[in-house]
Amino acid sequence: MTALAVGALKETAPGERRVALDPESVARLVAAGKSVFIESGAGTAASFTDAAFETSGATVGTRAQVIAAADVLAVVRYPDDAVASKLRSGQVLLGLVDPLNHLAETERLASAGITVVALELLPRTVSRAQAMDALSSQSSAAGYRAGIVAAEAFGRYLPMMITASGTARPAKVIVIGTGVAGLQAIATTKRLGAVVTGYDVRADSRGEVESLGAQFMTSSVSNGAGAGGYARALTAEEQATQENELAAALVGFDIIITTAKVPGRTPPVLVSARTLAALHPGSVCIDLGSSDRGGNVAGSVDGATVVTEGGVTVVGAGELASDLPTSSSQMYGRNVVSVLASLAPGDGIEIDPTDAVHLAIVVSHSGEITNAQVRAALDLDPLEAHPATTSKATTKGTNAA
Amino acid sequence: MTALAVGALKETAPGERRVALDPESVARLVAAGKSVFIESGAGTAASFTDAAFETSGATVGTRAQVIAAADVLAVVRYPDDAVASKLRSGQVLLGLVDPLNHLAETERLASAGITVVALELLPRTVSRAQAMDALSSQSSAAGYRAGIVAAEAFGRYLPMMITASGTARPAKVIVIGTGVAGLQAIATTKRLGAVVTGYDVRADSRGEVESLGAQFMTSSVSNGAGAGGYARALTAEEQATQENELAAALVGFDIIITTAKVPGRTPPVLVSARTLAALHPGSVCIDLGSSDRGGNVAGSVDGATVVTEGGVTVVGAGELASDLPTSSSQMYGRNVVSVLASLAPGDGIEIDPTDAVHLAIVVSHSGEITNAQVRAALDLDPLEAHPATTSKATTKGTNAA
Repeated sequence: MTALAVGALKETAPGERRVALDPESVARLVAAGKSVFIESGAGTAASFTDAAFETSGATVGTRAQVIAAADVLAVVRYPDDAVASKLRSGQVLLGLVDPLNHLAETERLASAGITVVALELLPRTVSRAQAMDALSSQSSAAGYRAGIVAAEAFGRYLPMMITASGTARPAKVIVIGTGVAGLQAIATTKRLGAVVTGYDVRADSRGEVESLGAQFMTSSVSNGAGAGGYARALTAEEQATQENELAAALVGFDIIITTAKVPGRTPPVLVSARTLAALHPGSVCIDLGSSDRGGNVAGSVDGATVVTEGGVTVVGAGELASDLPTSSSQMYGRNVVSVLASLAPGDGIEIDPTDAVHLAIVVSHSGEITNAQVRAALDLDPLEAHPATTSKATTKGTNAA
Repeated sequence: MTALAVGALKETAPGERRVALDPESVARLVAAGKSVFIESGAGTAASFTDAAFETSGATVGTRAQVIAAADVLAVVRYPDDAVASKLRSGQVLLGLVDPLNHLAETERLASAGITVVALELLPRTVSRAQAMDALSSQSSAAGYRAGIVAAEAFGRYLPMMITASGTARPAKVIVIGTGVAGLQAIATTKRLGAVVTGYDVRADSRGEVESLGAQFMTSSVSNGAGAGGYARALTAEEQATQENELAAALVGFDIIITTAKVPGRTPPVLVSARTLAALHPGSVCIDLGSSDRGGNVAGSVDGATVVTEGGVTVVGAGELASDLPTSSSQMYGRNVVSVLASLAPGDGIEIDPTDAVHLAIVVSHSGEITNAQVRAALDLDPLEAHPATTSKATTKGTNAA
């Protein structure tokens, strides 16, 4: 049998700087008996040169060559139509492809026989899946980056400064949502010397927040822990109560970092227009929940920085991991390698219908949508049994560069 | 006698976000019996509103009104010609006016009878002058900011990260020049978890650098401590030796922060084009020595970010304190208040010719260039004795808003 061919392209989402494989991940795949194909320039924005990929054992070629050669195409984000339309039956598309926000596209790929593997659907409570957890690795990068971006957008020192020219008080930071991203944002602003508060509706987050040296604040709306390790979505009434409580507290802070992303849903508004107007000039909001479906901060625009009339800077920062592209790609590449070690331990894709991880992340296979969550979103009948069987990817490119 | 009127304008240098007085400094001046006039909008870019200035006791008005009312015009940087040409005999212009780079303008102001006070000429070794030391307060802000900007420009984590998705090694940072700015840059990148080295030709900087937890590196070119607390300018040969030694060391670093500014001189190139080409892709250089006279990094452009062909980001950051405008202005305002407490303890300007601080910072008075350094730069004969005498500023605006 020929070795399984794994490919990575230059990402197609505007402004995306990450790449699905870094040279170290390539070396790991090659050591595991895979062959690897990388689009020329795919790593440039993440500071990986074509030469570095070649040194690691990859073949560097054009986009068309990589698509033709790859059994598995690893991506960071859902590719544009020009790429998606070139995929063929039996080929695997693997990445943070966000199927719940790409329902029509996913259905099309499924019908065309493409196996779609969505890393955000990984069950976060399965401990052996940790090394595959791209959502965590990228949230971690985004959280760190949020601290840096906040410091960059803020016109004052974060640490206390006692100098001959006067004393600067430390910045007061609140991080709303203390998941992976929130905890990293707390750690980073703490490192920089700010006085930091972590806010979460899940009262049992207290321990993690306090272990970072931050203060913990919670809501009277309790029981916020949802399924799969995410905060559950709140009801409209709960959201209103939470927002009112928060609004009263927020006015005392200089920097507000929000992290409430709920997969496939419109993010909750945690900082309302009224709260925003009450913040003092020079305050900064970093909205990690920002997307084209809205954000956690009223008026935030994903990917843009807006200054309100009252002098508050709002950074729409829904894809902040992309701005730490080297580290994010290194971690992401490791996640891809781990997923492939499970899905393709040998020379073919072997989907195990009894494996909770495979069941969760494999969205389509053999012409059918196989993931329950995605089927429900598409109003399809539930499947009787998982149809996936152990199979070698059927199509194989022949014209690798 | 009427109270001495102190004014501050919206700064005229392009991109400058600081303001010479903040509301707290205004309150201090008012408490000391001064009256204060602020141009409307002067503090906007530093997050100080007109209302905040008014609450502190300032009168807010148009630019023309402030110029007309002020006995002393406090500025951060040398104002544009439109402002300078409106100043009148007896009026005081006080700030980081950089007379050695504005020789013709300074001579013109002197002839017109304007008293020019240049804060960068403050003797840094006089301990009672510490509270007036605007160069230090602004260098401190620039150094902190250099650490933030470096983290922002760098595609990787600064701290070591040990996660389920792999381990990220900490960034290696070298700060060249360990004066006020350099030490702050060391402290900030250290806080963020980088492995930091401080480099200085002054071997006795070791203690300060090591006390911040950084490693110290020096040159075989020793005896680098110059007059007035600055590093002295090196000879061409010394510079070449230093550059070669540094070049060999620099290749191992991810982030290079240079801080070699020599007042009134072209800054030394510490990172040559050849060194720059040898750095690995993704490396970052922050050039605090950058100005329109050149910088410490080959090809750096002041106020701009350049990415080399080899993927190295070079940030020309000669006025970085301006990007921390709130804190910088707060510290600067304190410096202005301290200088005025010495120069104008009562209702008039009282220049004391026996005071080392006054002698150093007063560049012109009563129609004459009085500062020895500036006279020398203008090829004027040395003065026999300091001509300044105790005097009340003679002109007084009447139409304050």
